[in-house]
Amino acid sequence: MAKKAIVLTSGGLDSTTVAAVAKEGGFDLYCLSFYYGQRHKMELESAKKVAAYFGAKEHIIIDIDMKIIGGSALTSSIEVPKHRNEKEMGEDIPVTYVPARNTIFLSYALAYAEVQKADDLFIGVNAIDYSGYPDCRPEYISAFEKMANLATKVGVEGTTHLKIHAPLQDLSKEGIIRLGLSLGVDYSITHSCYDPMPDGSSCGECDSCLLRKHGFELAGVTDPIKYTE
Amino acid sequence: MAKKAIVLTSGGLDSTTVAAVAKEGGFDLYCLSFYYGQRHKMELESAKKVAAYFGAKEHIIIDIDMKIIGGSALTSSIEVPKHRNEKEMGEDIPVTYVPARNTIFLSYALAYAEVQKADDLFIGVNAIDYSGYPDCRPEYISAFEKMANLATKVGVEGTTHLKIHAPLQDLSKEGIIRLGLSLGVDYSITHSCYDPMPDGSSCGECDSCLLRKHGFELAGVTDPIKYTE
Repeated sequence: MAKKAIVLTSGGLDSTTVAAVAKEGGFDLYCLSFYYGQRHKMELESAKKVAAYFGAKEHIIIDIDMKIIGGSALTSSIEVPKHRNEKEMGEDIPVTYVPARNTIFLSYALAYAEVQKADDLFIGVNAIDYSGYPDCRPEYISAFEKMANLATKVGVEGTTHLKIHAPLQDLSKEGIIRLGLSLGVDYSITHSCYDPMPDGSSCGECDSCLLRKHGFELAGVTDPIKYTE
Repeated sequence: MAKKAIVLTSGGLDSTTVAAVAKEGGFDLYCLSFYYGQRHKMELESAKKVAAYFGAKEHIIIDIDMKIIGGSALTSSIEVPKHRNEKEMGEDIPVTYVPARNTIFLSYALAYAEVQKADDLFIGVNAIDYSGYPDCRPEYISAFEKMANLATKVGVEGTTHLKIHAPLQDLSKEGIIRLGLSLGVDYSITHSCYDPMPDGSSCGECDSCLLRKHGFELAGVTDPIKYTE
């Protein structure tokens, strides 16, 4: 029987690449997605496509209530910044940062792993993210893993150990796309835009779109999704 | 202006004592409770009374979806054990254990702390709990604190540090009750039973009731709540 992996699946380019890595590693996939009052419900439609694409054994979507806590452009009404260059994006913590988001996501993944008796969690944090988001840094992931191994039944019994896999950690967007393409990922099912049009096309102007477009350019491949322009 | 404290408030005896400790320490209280499909909705009614009792600046109740993940008597239909002695309770992880519960609770508390710019989180874990629940042990709390300081904006800027207060960590139930009474806590507003009657009275037979009753006996005080018997 294949080992089980819990894969945080947003429907975006990064987590889809991570799912491909887990699949390639021979794991059975248990995909976990979150709806958190964000503007981009479309990501969840992509997440469903991604889970189906990789033949996930299960796909759970958890509705988490971030709005009640507040504090981010993705959950409240602060405007999504457009047309920023990479220097501007890296200068400060993005307004699209959701407080403690990865900590909350990984905590649910930990609960799911415990119930499924899975030892492996996959998350798509990467070098570009951790220029801006504190909870994407390698030292954060490592501290979470340590805490997680103390948090659960397994940690008490000491028989097995949870491992948090962050296979994109050192990759640029270009590197991620190249990795995914080498694993046969169909990026047309993914969604990255922070501010999509009603018809589902991407704005092409938010940080996420700009990074994605630039990544595809550098990789020398045409991005298969539709942009408004 | 008083410093802000995020207080995990379940409506139970322990977290109510912790709220009293935070209040005594001069903090403004921001209470955080969770509804997680558990049988004991009554705890939340108590949590509201507790927040009001201590004049909390805000009380947020977050609906978290543990049922979809499964795995505990408090969220699914496994029977709550009755009439166990303390040796039996301590022998293994209780079936009332909710996977990764404190990790999820503390993660939301971390998000709330970040939005409120609070540096202090209070949680009521204690010596009795951590005989059975892995995520109540001091080494777990310490690992969470370390992770939390890497997870947030503040952690990147390095200006302040989050502190997780677990003031009951070394106390028995008797010790907790003595502490609370010395701070003037009215325990009639609290609720502990895992399996309460429809009229709100406590069963007196589940682990939580037995520990509570025994604690009041040892403290030489009458428990002000109503038991069915």
